Amino acid sequence: MPLTRVIEQTVPVTFRYAVQFTHGLFGPENGVLRDTLAGKGGESVKVLCVLDAGVGEAFPDLARQIGAYFARHADAMQLVAPPLVVPGGERVKGDTRHVGQVQDAIHAHGIDRHSYVIVVGGGAVIDMVGFAAGTAHRGVRLVRVPTTVLAQNDSGVGVKNSVNAYGKKNWLGTFAPPYAVLNDLDFLAALEERDWLSGLAEAVKVALLKDASFFTWLEENAPALVARDLEAMEYAVYRCAELHLAHIAGSGDPFEMGSSRPLDFGHWAAHKLESLTSYALRHGEAVAVGLALDCTYAALKGMLPEADWRRVLDLLLALRLPVYVPELGTSAQDPADPSSVLSGLNEFREHLGGRLTIPLLTHIGRATEVHEMDFGLLRRTVGLLQDLHTHPTRGTSWLSTKAPAC
Amino acid sequence: MPLTRVIEQTVPVTFRYAVQFTHGLFGPENGVLRDTLAGKGGESVKVLCVLDAGVGEAFPDLARQIGAYFARHADAMQLVAPPLVVPGGERVKGDTRHVGQVQDAIHAHGIDRHSYVIVVGGGAVIDMVGFAAGTAHRGVRLVRVPTTVLAQNDSGVGVKNSVNAYGKKNWLGTFAPPYAVLNDLDFLAALEERDWLSGLAEAVKVALLKDASFFTWLEENAPALVARDLEAMEYAVYRCAELHLAHIAGSGDPFEMGSSRPLDFGHWAAHKLESLTSYALRHGEAVAVGLALDCTYAALKGMLPEADWRRVLDLLLALRLPVYVPELGTSAQDPADPSSVLSGLNEFREHLGGRLTIPLLTHIGRATEVHEMDFGLLRRTVGLLQDLHTHPTRGTSWLSTKAPAC
Repeated sequence: MPLTRVIEQTVPVTFRYAVQFTHGLFGPENGVLRDTLAGKGGESVKVLCVLDAGVGEAFPDLARQIGAYFARHADAMQLVAPPLVVPGGERVKGDTRHVGQVQDAIHAHGIDRHSYVIVVGGGAVIDMVGFAAGTAHRGVRLVRVPTTVLAQNDSGVGVKNSVNAYGKKNWLGTFAPPYAVLNDLDFLAALEERDWLSGLAEAVKVALLKDASFFTWLEENAPALVARDLEAMEYAVYRCAELHLAHIAGSGDPFEMGSSRPLDFGHWAAHKLESLTSYALRHGEAVAVGLALDCTYAALKGMLPEADWRRVLDLLLALRLPVYVPELGTSAQDPADPSSVLSGLNEFREHLGGRLTIPLLTHIGRATEVHEMDFGLLRRTVGLLQDLHTHPTRGTSWLSTKAPAC
Repeated sequence: MPLTRVIEQTVPVTFRYAVQFTHGLFGPENGVLRDTLAGKGGESVKVLCVLDAGVGEAFPDLARQIGAYFARHADAMQLVAPPLVVPGGERVKGDTRHVGQVQDAIHAHGIDRHSYVIVVGGGAVIDMVGFAAGTAHRGVRLVRVPTTVLAQNDSGVGVKNSVNAYGKKNWLGTFAPPYAVLNDLDFLAALEERDWLSGLAEAVKVALLKDASFFTWLEENAPALVARDLEAMEYAVYRCAELHLAHIAGSGDPFEMGSSRPLDFGHWAAHKLESLTSYALRHGEAVAVGLALDCTYAALKGMLPEADWRRVLDLLLALRLPVYVPELGTSAQDPADPSSVLSGLNEFREHLGGRLTIPLLTHIGRATEVHEMDFGLLRRTVGLLQDLHTHPTRGTSWLSTKAPAC
């Protein structure tokens, strides 16, 4: 009898962390960071701070402010060194030397599992530092201070981290929930136009998947959001983060062991477009194009009512988000060609593993999953979006005349 | 009001995996591996196999057998390439090129989250491959086939993986439970003397912590174990794995977010001794010395009854495990000197983080935790073990005359 014995092992783990929304996080009177870090035994904790160079440029006084904050709270927490500055943007995820640089600092300053790494920056820097901190000592405590709309409403609040490898986005990474997330809304005011707007693509995405009334709110508030109304943005960020967090907590598969990843709606094309544009396209912009692509595909397929499709495209356009980029290519595309956006479908499947599983919209606020995509119809979809992009004045009313549901 | 809103996030995750004990895993009639891997949808799954060079040498026909097994089950599973051979032993954890080599293969062969990496080898190779697989695509499925006593009864059944960095054992790693563990007891018969015996140190450890009757079983079966009785070894491995697994499942802190790590009993000195001997000392041998050290310390401290202490030392000696090595040093040791074993206490604290927490025995089968260790008493402990090592014929009865409890 070859099989003598079996032990069925079950390991339950519960991760808990708070996502806090505040203003002026490093201001002298703000107690949020201190309350997050202060040791329960009254001991002073060690903290390594990593700062996104782009944020440092936008807020030249920030490093000094951080130093002053720690000096004020020296009884509870000590900065082991001045903030370690790393380049911002997706490039930081493509060079493993940055991971080494953060780990060198963790080692040199004796940061342990009860010490803290604080990362202040955009989603890419948070991802990279998260990977460095998540593998040092099998995970030291990470406090994320996301500074962009995208990082505050999506990438910075979840349980993943990563860097790029083999020319593929997020190829290396771990699942490692943060110790805490501190969203300082004051950082958003300084964002340049593209970053202010592009992060809203994730809000559109999660509203489409989960919450029709949030979608309506976005429609109503699109003009205010475009006009940089900070109060509107605060609500958009909060509600989007809340919907993402509720999904992660309730999905039953936060570490993505199965094939289903509804939050990656629109992302198969988005990841590929980011890579095809060498990350000149922002993640949020790429997601907007990906949403336009998959929603138009669903409409052409007859899964999504045309009126809903029109609302989606109109909202993306009202938020000044792109719905087409030249890298989407033309109808001649070959899915086996890595320079074709269609090859992104298989790369997406491979990253998830298992069966291809693509979320597609059936109504605003509701999605389903499909396991194959029709390349011919995808090429038609691209053609339609190109058309809409070339003749924006026609608006979205052209679909019904030009491309009846099939 | 600086703090505007808080979302308290709770992420429950449950990991499940089977630890199976079998014989002749790659034999043509053994269905265990096939049943573990076969896709539920009837599709054929991709498998990358990584093989410990030491195991390949001990079983020169193994690579061919593995190939034949997969050929026989080609409907359900395909080997993407001949087994990738990596060096065995702790050295493989010190050179990050090996992690790169495994990840190159994962990438080149399109191993995704629903494909498999099978690692056949000792604990060090399993640790290294686990880190490579645990970070590729944020974790591809890993099936561990541990080939040593130590890996089958302890390191190969748990939820951790790691490599060494900055001259420190396990500095880099993740928590990532395996997809399955397949313990083929036939591998044990080929082990050289040192590896056959040294893995039993973890059995002594977990018996001391958790199960006095298993300790008694070990005492009674020590002669059979030393005489390489395979049936006795099978039970020792099974019971030790079972106790480790039960602890991990029930501890409430499998990912070690707190300060308490009872299973690391005897390990503060063990990790340091491994490093001081450049890993010439096997992990199990180092653990035996570490157990002798901490039990003798507890006896001298008056925490552990002398009769219990004597049983511990007698069992270690009966199993031909070391209780002293020259690297333990002499009484002149300085805990601030990294070449002193005493410096291992702080390195251990730093790896865990937070407060120093050392498990010490109070009775056979029961431990408590202390938060400081007396360096003077530790030096005396070392002196006593050196004495016992130099004059083994005196036996353990000398403690009461020479060193009354203080």
